[in-house]
Amino acid sequence: MSIRVTVWNEGRHEQKHPAVQKVYPNGLHQPIVDHLNANGFTARAATLDMPEHGLTEEVLDQTDVLTWWGHMAHGDVSDEIVERVHQRVLLGMGLIVLHSGHYSKIFKKLMGTTCSLKWREADEHERIWVVNPGHPIADGLGEYFELPGHEMYGEFFDVPTPDELVFISWYPGGEVFRSGLCYHRGRGKVFYFSPGHETYPIYYQQEVLQVITNAVKWAAPSGAAYRLDAPNAKPLETLKKREE
Amino acid sequence: MSIRVTVWNEGRHEQKHPAVQKVYPNGLHQPIVDHLNANGFTARAATLDMPEHGLTEEVLDQTDVLTWWGHMAHGDVSDEIVERVHQRVLLGMGLIVLHSGHYSKIFKKLMGTTCSLKWREADEHERIWVVNPGHPIADGLGEYFELPGHEMYGEFFDVPTPDELVFISWYPGGEVFRSGLCYHRGRGKVFYFSPGHETYPIYYQQEVLQVITNAVKWAAPSGAAYRLDAPNAKPLETLKKREE
Amino acid sequence: MSIRVTVWNEGRHEQKHPAVQKVYPNGLHQPIVDHLNANGFTARAATLDMPEHGLTEEVLDQTDVLTWWGHMAHGDVSDEIVERVHQRVLLGMGLIVLHSGHYSKIFKKLMGTTCSLKWREADEHERIWVVNPGHPIADGLGEYFELPGHEMYGEFFDVPTPDELVFISWYPGGEVFRSGLCYHRGRGKVFYFSPGHETYPIYYQQEVLQVITNAVKWAAPSGAAYRLDAPNAKPLETLKKREE
Amino acid sequence: MSIRVTVWNEGRHEQKHPAVQKVYPNGLHQPIVDHLNANGFTARAATLDMPEHGLTEEVLDQTDVLTWWGHMAHGDVSDEIVERVHQRVLLGMGLIVLHSGHYSKIFKKLMGTTCSLKWREADEHERIWVVNPGHPIADGLGEYFELPGHEMYGEFFDVPTPDELVFISWYPGGEVFRSGLCYHRGRGKVFYFSPGHETYPIYYQQEVLQVITNAVKWAAPSGAAYRLDAPNAKPLETLKKREE
Repeated sequence: MSIRVTVWNEGRHEQKHPAVQKVYPNGLHQPIVDHLNANGFTARAATLDMPEHGLTEEVLDQTDVLTWWGHMAHGDVSDEIVERVHQRVLLGMGLIVLHSGHYSKIFKKLMGTTCSLKWREADEHERIWVVNPGHPIADGLGEYFELPGHEMYGEFFDVPTPDELVFISWYPGGEVFRSGLCYHRGRGKVFYFSPGHETYPIYYQQEVLQVITNAVKWAAPSGAAYRLDAPNAKPLETLKKREE
Repeated sequence: MSIRVTVWNEGRHEQKHPAVQKVYPNGLHQPIVDHLNANGFTARAATLDMPEHGLTEEVLDQTDVLTWWGHMAHGDVSDEIVERVHQRVLLGMGLIVLHSGHYSKIFKKLMGTTCSLKWREADEHERIWVVNPGHPIADGLGEYFELPGHEMYGEFFDVPTPDELVFISWYPGGEVFRSGLCYHRGRGKVFYFSPGHETYPIYYQQEVLQVITNAVKWAAPSGAAYRLDAPNAKPLETLKKREE
Repeated sequence: MSIRVTVWNEGRHEQKHPAVQKVYPNGLHQPIVDHLNANGFTARAATLDMPEHGLTEEVLDQTDVLTWWGHMAHGDVSDEIVERVHQRVLLGMGLIVLHSGHYSKIFKKLMGTTCSLKWREADEHERIWVVNPGHPIADGLGEYFELPGHEMYGEFFDVPTPDELVFISWYPGGEVFRSGLCYHRGRGKVFYFSPGHETYPIYYQQEVLQVITNAVKWAAPSGAAYRLDAPNAKPLETLKKREE
Repeated sequence: MSIRVTVWNEGRHEQKHPAVQKVYPNGLHQPIVDHLNANGFTARAATLDMPEHGLTEEVLDQTDVLTWWGHMAHGDVSDEIVERVHQRVLLGMGLIVLHSGHYSKIFKKLMGTTCSLKWREADEHERIWVVNPGHPIADGLGEYFELPGHEMYGEFFDVPTPDELVFISWYPGGEVFRSGLCYHRGRGKVFYFSPGHETYPIYYQQEVLQVITNAVKWAAPSGAAYRLDAPNAKPLETLKKREE
């Protein structure tokens, strides 16, 4: 069975900014959805302004991996939906947080830190270096790839040390950034990937789509038994007092 | 200057349960405070029922490392104080979370997971193995040490993969537990250490006090510049368009 | 295309010890080979006493993942073959080191430490706890599984901190052991898994075969460009002196 | 008692290259030795051309932390001394590997990988970003510091994932580099720090000396019991057959 992906997009920039609308006439999510559907996944979009932000229990029941893009309206995401997504991640749903999603409620809740970073919009190119060449999320890439123009995101990126660091970005303005980060939370897998400022056609770029595809495969549910509660546990061995 | 430690204790069990009062007549915090003060630290106690839970801005201004013990009244800790402590940790204050503090608001907020675990009160002994013998928190220990009697805490312990794993506990009932865990969060260092059920004289035991002392030294503030916000950043290099 | 696995076995115990021969009449490798072939992999055996220990360049050219079991004859493995396998791992071949393979030349070379541990042959049962429930190597398991009888391997296990810790074992004699460990080395992925003492039918047990199968999938080559040398590199940007 | 540091220097460039001699008239090790001695440590130098490379058992008996700089003569270091230093590190001696020491026998032996990297001598400045602001090795630094001119070292740096990543370097030519890396090996702590090409006065620079000082403190021996062998271990509990 193919992996089922829900591509969540805030979807507000496209409504308000003609420049964004021009790059993403059907929404920033659409090229991701299209690419996934063309490559053996079952993908659909969900956006902030849908009922329950498009993330009903029914939708999440059919979601193996959720991708998350938000920027100008993080505060409009209801705490109830954040709690719902949080539990789903712990129970095993993969989560891929894209670009300005670093400041979303769900990412901050999962990280426990401010998730702050430096930023600059100066139309700089970005070079993304692979620093874990055997990682499946880097599959098919060269030593690095480039974004012709992008927003700068710079260190210090205030997140916990990742379980696995896959990419580090270089910027002409003098900064570096840990731009591809893997985390385990509960039974779930979380990947943060920084490319994707809304005014650039980043999500049409082949390497970016390749990374997202790789990450979806990596983050798909797998693993062992897991429970959310803290059970009182009977001993598995016959207890006896120690020999004195 | 000596390291300043605030030993936070919920302090409710001692009021309600004679058995606990007998073990800790001056509060569960007292032997920790006494040991630290006798060993070159400047320690004082703070408890839940003090104004602002004893964690005023003034107290925290004079706190390098905060230790946290709570159990039956996690919900009585105000969200405002949790937020205050969270910010202090990110800014560099060390935090040592003890035993049932795994379920405290502050630890769950820093971890982003349920922090649940298995448990059993069956008066079992516990053997705590060192699995990182070069770690400063294990300083002065043998290959393992034992608690003559304790509550069992078992896996799966639902916390993020620690930055450094120092101890793994063995129980006669058949469980294991990652019982000494290091994390970096923001500029702060966090250590979780599982010994300390309130009905046992754990905090009088030499090895336990040794670990807490080591952990206080490890968690004391150190490091580089850090900020909570996400600044717009001027380029550090002269930007120019790429050569085509 | 199916993943190609070479199951390497020292193969000496089976020749010398009737007790081992009785458990593994066709060699300790055979149940692993059979299980993999029955489950969509292409597996074959290689043993110490074959020319070049069965690990010719031709065989390795057709090997995606190599599993390694050795015990009494680590010293008989030629340094040339160890060097060859080492390079293959760095270039991306997966390596799964089983049980007493912890003391093999190839594992010690990859780890850089003694790889020593405590051990005892006392026919104890072993309980293997999952401590990373979302990890693909734990796929399909419960919270733990048991080996009815096994050799004890105890901490301190002198290996580098693993990139990912999947299993911790419990023994009735009072020890714990990190028994499932993931490493990246170069472009290659390495998994150490402790079950498999030669006098027990461990490699017929369903959970053990499940873990090996999961580990083969995890360790199969993937990733980005990689090279063994240290190249002089032309600048990727137009170098100019800094603005003073 | 002050921490005792042996500053090991290959010492060949200074003999052969007037340009290096000019920068380091008393050897590249001297400013490091002087700085440490001026700051409460007990430091001395040892060089390749001394008997036993200056690393006799007697010297190592009085060494808490060893720093290692080598470049053109890695092959002249005897395997016996490498083996001796390796054992000392496992037993708890700190090791700080500087710049081109990444290709030394001892570092490659401890890492298990090629330790290769990209390089270029083009008199570029380098900006070293702190990515773990609470780490003691970053103590006293700002968000970054710069080397006015240096050799470029670029990714992929073929080392195991560090236990802690402290610094990432930026270069004007378009590369990034993980330039401050912490490892535990046995009971010992290892820190790799990339600054120090022999033709630049790097080891006179305040921030570099600060980092080396911090790293010496971090790497100084601490911790619990440790042994090099693999002992047969008596059970710590009364063994009995399981209840059927």
